[in-house]
Amino acid sequence: MGTKYVYLFKEGSAGMKNLLGGKGANLAEMTNIGLPVPQGFTVTTEACTKYYQDGKVVNEEIQAQIFEALQKTEEVCGKKFGDTENPFLVSVRSGARASMPGMMDTILNLGLGDAAVQGMARKSNNERFAYDSYRRFIMMFSDVVMEVDKGKFEAILEEMKEHKGVEYDTQLDAADMKALVARFKELYRKEKGEEFPQDPKVQLMEAIKAVFRSWDNPRAIYYRRMNDIPGDWGTAVNVQAMVFGNMGDDCGTGVAFTRNPSTGENKLYGEYLINAQGEDVVAGIRTPQPISTLKDAMPAVYDQFVMTANTLEKHYRDMQDMEFTIEGGKLYMLQTRNGKRTAAAAIKIAVDLVDEGMLTPDEAVLKVEPKQLDTLLHPNFDQKALKAATAIAQGLPASPGAACGQVFFTAADAVAAAKTGMKALLVRNETTPEDIEGMDLSSGILTARGGMTSHAAVVARGMGRCAVVGCGVLRINEEAKTMVVNGVTYKEGDFLSIDGSTGNVYGEQIPTVEATVTGDFARLMAWADAARRLKVRTNADTPKDARQAVTFGAEGIGLCRTEHMFFEADRISAVREMILADTEAQRRTALAKLLPMQRGDFEGIYKAMQERPVTIRFLDPPLHEFLPQKSMVEEIAAIAKDLGATSEQIVAKIDSLHEFNPMMGHRGCRLSVTYPEIAEMQTRAVIEAALNVKKETGLNIKPEIMIPLVGEVKELAYVKKVVEETIQTVFAERGETAEYMIGTMIEIPRAALTADDIAKEAEFFSFGTNDLTQMTFGFSRDDAGKFLDAYYEKKIFESDPFARIDQIGVGKLVEIAARLGRQTRPNIKLGICGEHGGDPSSVMFCHKVGLDYVSCSPFRVPIARLAAAHAAIMEKQ
Amino acid sequence: MGTKYVYLFKEGSAGMKNLLGGKGANLAEMTNIGLPVPQGFTVTTEACTKYYQDGKVVNEEIQAQIFEALQKTEEVCGKKFGDTENPFLVSVRSGARASMPGMMDTILNLGLGDAAVQGMARKSNNERFAYDSYRRFIMMFSDVVMEVDKGKFEAILEEMKEHKGVEYDTQLDAADMKALVARFKELYRKEKGEEFPQDPKVQLMEAIKAVFRSWDNPRAIYYRRMNDIPGDWGTAVNVQAMVFGNMGDDCGTGVAFTRNPSTGENKLYGEYLINAQGEDVVAGIRTPQPISTLKDAMPAVYDQFVMTANTLEKHYRDMQDMEFTIEGGKLYMLQTRNGKRTAAAAIKIAVDLVDEGMLTPDEAVLKVEPKQLDTLLHPNFDQKALKAATAIAQGLPASPGAACGQVFFTAADAVAAAKTGMKALLVRNETTPEDIEGMDLSSGILTARGGMTSHAAVVARGMGRCAVVGCGVLRINEEAKTMVVNGVTYKEGDFLSIDGSTGNVYGEQIPTVEATVTGDFARLMAWADAARRLKVRTNADTPKDARQAVTFGAEGIGLCRTEHMFFEADRISAVREMILADTEAQRRTALAKLLPMQRGDFEGIYKAMQERPVTIRFLDPPLHEFLPQKSMVEEIAAIAKDLGATSEQIVAKIDSLHEFNPMMGHRGCRLSVTYPEIAEMQTRAVIEAALNVKKETGLNIKPEIMIPLVGEVKELAYVKKVVEETIQTVFAERGETAEYMIGTMIEIPRAALTADDIAKEAEFFSFGTNDLTQMTFGFSRDDAGKFLDAYYEKKIFESDPFARIDQIGVGKLVEIAARLGRQTRPNIKLGICGEHGGDPSSVMFCHKVGLDYVSCSPFRVPIARLAAAHAAIMEKQ
Repeated sequence: MGTKYVYLFKEGSAGMKNLLGGKGANLAEMTNIGLPVPQGFTVTTEACTKYYQDGKVVNEEIQAQIFEALQKTEEVCGKKFGDTENPFLVSVRSGARASMPGMMDTILNLGLGDAAVQGMARKSNNERFAYDSYRRFIMMFSDVVMEVDKGKFEAILEEMKEHKGVEYDTQLDAADMKALVARFKELYRKEKGEEFPQDPKVQLMEAIKAVFRSWDNPRAIYYRRMNDIPGDWGTAVNVQAMVFGNMGDDCGTGVAFTRNPSTGENKLYGEYLINAQGEDVVAGIRTPQPISTLKDAMPAVYDQFVMTANTLEKHYRDMQDMEFTIEGGKLYMLQTRNGKRTAAAAIKIAVDLVDEGMLTPDEAVLKVEPKQLDTLLHPNFDQKALKAATAIAQGLPASPGAACGQVFFTAADAVAAAKTGMKALLVRNETTPEDIEGMDLSSGILTARGGMTSHAAVVARGMGRCAVVGCGVLRINEEAKTMVVNGVTYKEGDFLSIDGSTGNVYGEQIPTVEATVTGDFARLMAWADAARRLKVRTNADTPKDARQAVTFGAEGIGLCRTEHMFFEADRISAVREMILADTEAQRRTALAKLLPMQRGDFEGIYKAMQERPVTIRFLDPPLHEFLPQKSMVEEIAAIAKDLGATSEQIVAKIDSLHEFNPMMGHRGCRLSVTYPEIAEMQTRAVIEAALNVKKETGLNIKPEIMIPLVGEVKELAYVKKVVEETIQTVFAERGETAEYMIGTMIEIPRAALTADDIAKEAEFFSFGTNDLTQMTFGFSRDDAGKFLDAYYEKKIFESDPFARIDQIGVGKLVEIAARLGRQTRPNIKLGICGEHGGDPSSVMFCHKVGLDYVSCSPFRVPIARLAAAHAAIMEKQ
Repeated sequence: MGTKYVYLFKEGSAGMKNLLGGKGANLAEMTNIGLPVPQGFTVTTEACTKYYQDGKVVNEEIQAQIFEALQKTEEVCGKKFGDTENPFLVSVRSGARASMPGMMDTILNLGLGDAAVQGMARKSNNERFAYDSYRRFIMMFSDVVMEVDKGKFEAILEEMKEHKGVEYDTQLDAADMKALVARFKELYRKEKGEEFPQDPKVQLMEAIKAVFRSWDNPRAIYYRRMNDIPGDWGTAVNVQAMVFGNMGDDCGTGVAFTRNPSTGENKLYGEYLINAQGEDVVAGIRTPQPISTLKDAMPAVYDQFVMTANTLEKHYRDMQDMEFTIEGGKLYMLQTRNGKRTAAAAIKIAVDLVDEGMLTPDEAVLKVEPKQLDTLLHPNFDQKALKAATAIAQGLPASPGAACGQVFFTAADAVAAAKTGMKALLVRNETTPEDIEGMDLSSGILTARGGMTSHAAVVARGMGRCAVVGCGVLRINEEAKTMVVNGVTYKEGDFLSIDGSTGNVYGEQIPTVEATVTGDFARLMAWADAARRLKVRTNADTPKDARQAVTFGAEGIGLCRTEHMFFEADRISAVREMILADTEAQRRTALAKLLPMQRGDFEGIYKAMQERPVTIRFLDPPLHEFLPQKSMVEEIAAIAKDLGATSEQIVAKIDSLHEFNPMMGHRGCRLSVTYPEIAEMQTRAVIEAALNVKKETGLNIKPEIMIPLVGEVKELAYVKKVVEETIQTVFAERGETAEYMIGTMIEIPRAALTADDIAKEAEFFSFGTNDLTQMTFGFSRDDAGKFLDAYYEKKIFESDPFARIDQIGVGKLVEIAARLGRQTRPNIKLGICGEHGGDPSSVMFCHKVGLDYVSCSPFRVPIARLAAAHAAIMEKQ
């Protein structure tokens, strides 16, 4: 016996989703629990995989199994393919493991041909209905299966209506339909160079192959990438006996949810149409009726449907999304599945199901997708006000949330406005690192240029600040402080609203509502916290971000980037002096100016975090990132004056700091090796701040000092020695001590490969998977845009390795490093602080590898908590 | 019993080199075979390591062992430290495992003090001699051990001589010496704030600590890095009873080699001085005598020395470098070691020792350092002519060899001159990729700017072309085609000579001698070839390089960089058109222009290599490397015209190709994924050339197509499919076929980590350890210069990972990839084609990992062959 590639519905079950796809498994399950399902069979996902392996051919074995299942189904239904008395008609639908809406259209009425249509006419006693079905089938099959342009069929239909002087299809009679069939067949012959296939088996095999092919169409590939669905899963194909909702007023078709998918309210929700096929609901010509009215129209059917819905919800222990058809007063279930729902609904339903005794808290936690929470964690527009508003432009939805504020065109203006208590909205052609403070103090950021990985987008996401970028229709004049959008001019101080989830820009005030984690949301998160093993920290550089993260449940800071504080206006000049200094003495002078500021930053952060752990990463980026552009003549002159040099010398120094590949240049701990005085200053700031806060508040601060970009243990040992000597000096000066830890980032492949050595010096590892991904793949995030689209298109990559950790390559390094690190130092603390720390699938990977914590941006903390709970619960199961 | 840290000479042996250092082990060995050696003891290298571990302290246990050994030595010698009748005096010398000349000066006469000097005077009956020794000791101890500036002592001595009106030290009498001692002691007191130490044990311990410290002085660190000596070996210290060659005319001291270290001639070679200490030989005041004249001066001593030399050479089965002293007509051996020798001598001695029956061929092969061969493989100056010449300038010795030719200031002029048969010497401020052809056709390259890793240096080394770079005194006017050096002007066509091994530049013609592998050299290489398992291929991009490599024994091409051919003047415009094309059609037009040229290149290379395997790497570098500078207005206008665009559009396109980190950007197989037509053209050129050459010559060409920069198997699968389809098309067009292989570079960490997957598609791996090193360490070769010096200085790195493979990190990836690759495809062919392929220690690593071949630049082929033989022979042993 070979592999079984085809299952009758009665042979399957809900547990066989991987093989039968979601739709097929549920049709089987409904069949088995005795619900009224038109019978049929499912061609498995394995058949799809085999189709691709065999070079896009359905082999004979599979075809034989399909025809065998067809024959059995014909027997059950008492009809035959192509029969001139009672022809067997089927629908053909795709159905993958995971729901992929829009991947492929359904084909209805398959089996019709010049002979069968007569049988249908006879059997239904309705010639118009039969030929209407036939002409619909020809068009659908030609469009979906044979790739003939649908528009050409529609043109013929329009011509016919015009010729007949009617407005609607329904006004055409049987003769018109027959004429249409003839013209459609003629069009088909012209387009394809052959007759429209009359053999239903040929129709069926072509349709099945079309479904298989649709697995790899660009829409499907894009959808999979967006939803982390592997490309090798394949899709199943469901072949099901047709039932007709359009054979009279005792017929109908509809869609319903067992609970409200928007709010989660426990009340049947849906709509239906009398005397219609599924496509009519979509077409929008007639307005569907609320499901509740079915009670009056067909009381018995309604009661049966309500009972069925209850049965299904109890059976699946989840809100169901169902399709049904009523043929001659008889209810048929065509599909059921766990319904898609908004984040708010997901939470309410999960919590209600626990209260109703249907789910355990752990099960409820699994019912909510971590990613979904995103929409609940940012401010959102008041929905009523939003509906009344009209967008004036659309950009890329770079960072979710909603913002409303007064427009400012420079970071400095935005900062000044924010400090007076105004809600500022920063509008720029594009942002630069110097805009950081302005971005942070604005309620939202809008740029005319840049993509989803532009500076504005990346920084805004990190901050959890709403942002719309690359809004090309904006004509911004930063000098004049005006912006023109489609002829309308907006000035500084005018109100704008932007929606970071849709990219919409509104030229008016729309009130926003703040996010909170309360009520059902809080209950669910408490269950998640009880379940998870992984701790969740946050990446935060300011007291404000730290406080935000704590409200969202952060248990510490996993990454405090000390250099982010360097861009603020009152510091950047000292930073530049430090970089451009020619001697150690000059450098120390500049560092001395920075010390009190940096110490103050840490004091603020410690206080915000109370006694939660705080990991502080020492200076990391290439120094030239901080330098002025060579065109900034005045700034350069000022620096030259401070350093007792000429402007030309400063420009020459800036030139000498140029790097060919800054990502792989003089940065990270390499800076501390060449200029140990930088590490000294930063250590002093970290420790003095800890002692000050202890004195002031009694809080016991235990900072974790993190040395970045280590690739060799001797690098770490060198910098650690500088740090420890400085700490001892400070302790001696102050006559008091504090606890501290010293560890490193693992972000260079060599560090992962030699983690046993590195752990001799490091008390903790934090995986910097942004850089680790860059080095492991050998491409930089800033440059990969030039070829990544081709990689997705050609199915070389299925997801962005910077968004979702590459478990095969980068993940292998993480596993190696975790194992080697523990080998040397069994209690070594392991965490991750790359952007992956907030990505659910990556969080689950971190759980599996046994890390102690993940760290992510404040707005992703609840997502990570929930993902960590998922990982723990799934492991238990 | 604790560790034994101190060994008497009679307790050691030659086999204990790691513990006793080379000098100590050989002193022990000579003692054991009964040669006259002043007795003493060795403090081990482990004591040195312990000293560093303990925070630069000699612990009590070690000190106790030193004093115990001292006491036993005193007993053997019948003298006592500080004795006023017959004081025991010692020399203290460092001695590491590997010889490290100049690491630390010797300290002689240790043990002298105010009391002992009287004993010495009495015993020798020579007060002047005693005080002369004392004043020398004070100066030496102060300088070497206590870091008091030697110049201050010399100033006092000069003053004394002036005051006495004499010219030489020898003209000072005993009273003068006494006065000098007093003044030296006073200087010491002033400088150090304490009396000159009188206790010989204190002197001894200070001297030992100074030797330990000297292990880490900058000279020693630099020497170790140049010679691949690990920093954790430590040095031993030898304490040996003094003998005096300066006590009269029956005394003397000298140095000799058992064979001539320059030529290898089998004849005792050396020199000596009557009535002198070792330092007098160095001082150069008196001219030493050839060793042969000792036969007349002291016939008995001479005979004894000749016998001793023979004994030692037979004992060590190698040419010996010996130091000896004659005291009162008695011969003392102070040192023997395998003598340093020139490459030519090394080869002659090794071959002679085989002929003399002293060594097996395998042993002889091990006697020649692979690195040394370098000097034999490049043209060299006629030595006589060189001696008569005077350098006009000195730059960095970037690429070895010697060149003499007429000066040209542009690559184009050099090419034109070379094509008329002139020997051109290319002189530039700095070279660019566009100069490639000019560099290749010149006999040497001289630049005013750039360092050892500048473009000129790297490319010249790759080509084996002699180069001197960064010669700052040159004032080159490329417009006027003149060069001024210290006021002298050189014009185009003037003769210059440059020495790539010293960096010297000569303003005249010096004849050069071509390198050949003949005679003894050829015999030795034949033995090496018989011993080695690893194959040696070459990196060659032109028929000329390929032919050169074959004469040097290359067994194939491991890396043919197709893009190197793109820079030639007649192609670069087509390449630029290809890059700047906006559509696939435009790109194909440009590629069609390149096809015949590239096909011609491959035909030439196949013919040069006959049927040896040729691995051809497809286009690798970021495209913008080929683009004109934006300032090259005319070129841009020409390209714009060809492409039917405006100059502005071309400039905008150049801008759009800018990358932040080109090393991690759009290059390698990423180019073939985005523009498969490039791979198609290159495949066509490779295969059509193979078929053409087969037709023309009957040679069976089996090209190996190598896809670069693969990080994911699907990338390789995609490009491989394009390549294979193109091959099948060509086969069909031509009606004939050829064998071929398709493989990949392993140069991205992820490729190494997923090599089991990659091997499903790749028939061979070639480790591109240049890029692999960059990605694994996370720094780019072009930028690392900014911090690598600090890394050497701070002992974080001991060698340049780009020159010598990092076995711990990069090597681990190579091992993982080799293992995983073989797991999937047991007969997968494995090679290396990074610059490490020509580095002996890296070649030995490749042997150990079990690669099939290494590939290196033509001039390194014999080096790699010899290193491979070393690895195989050492493995057998």
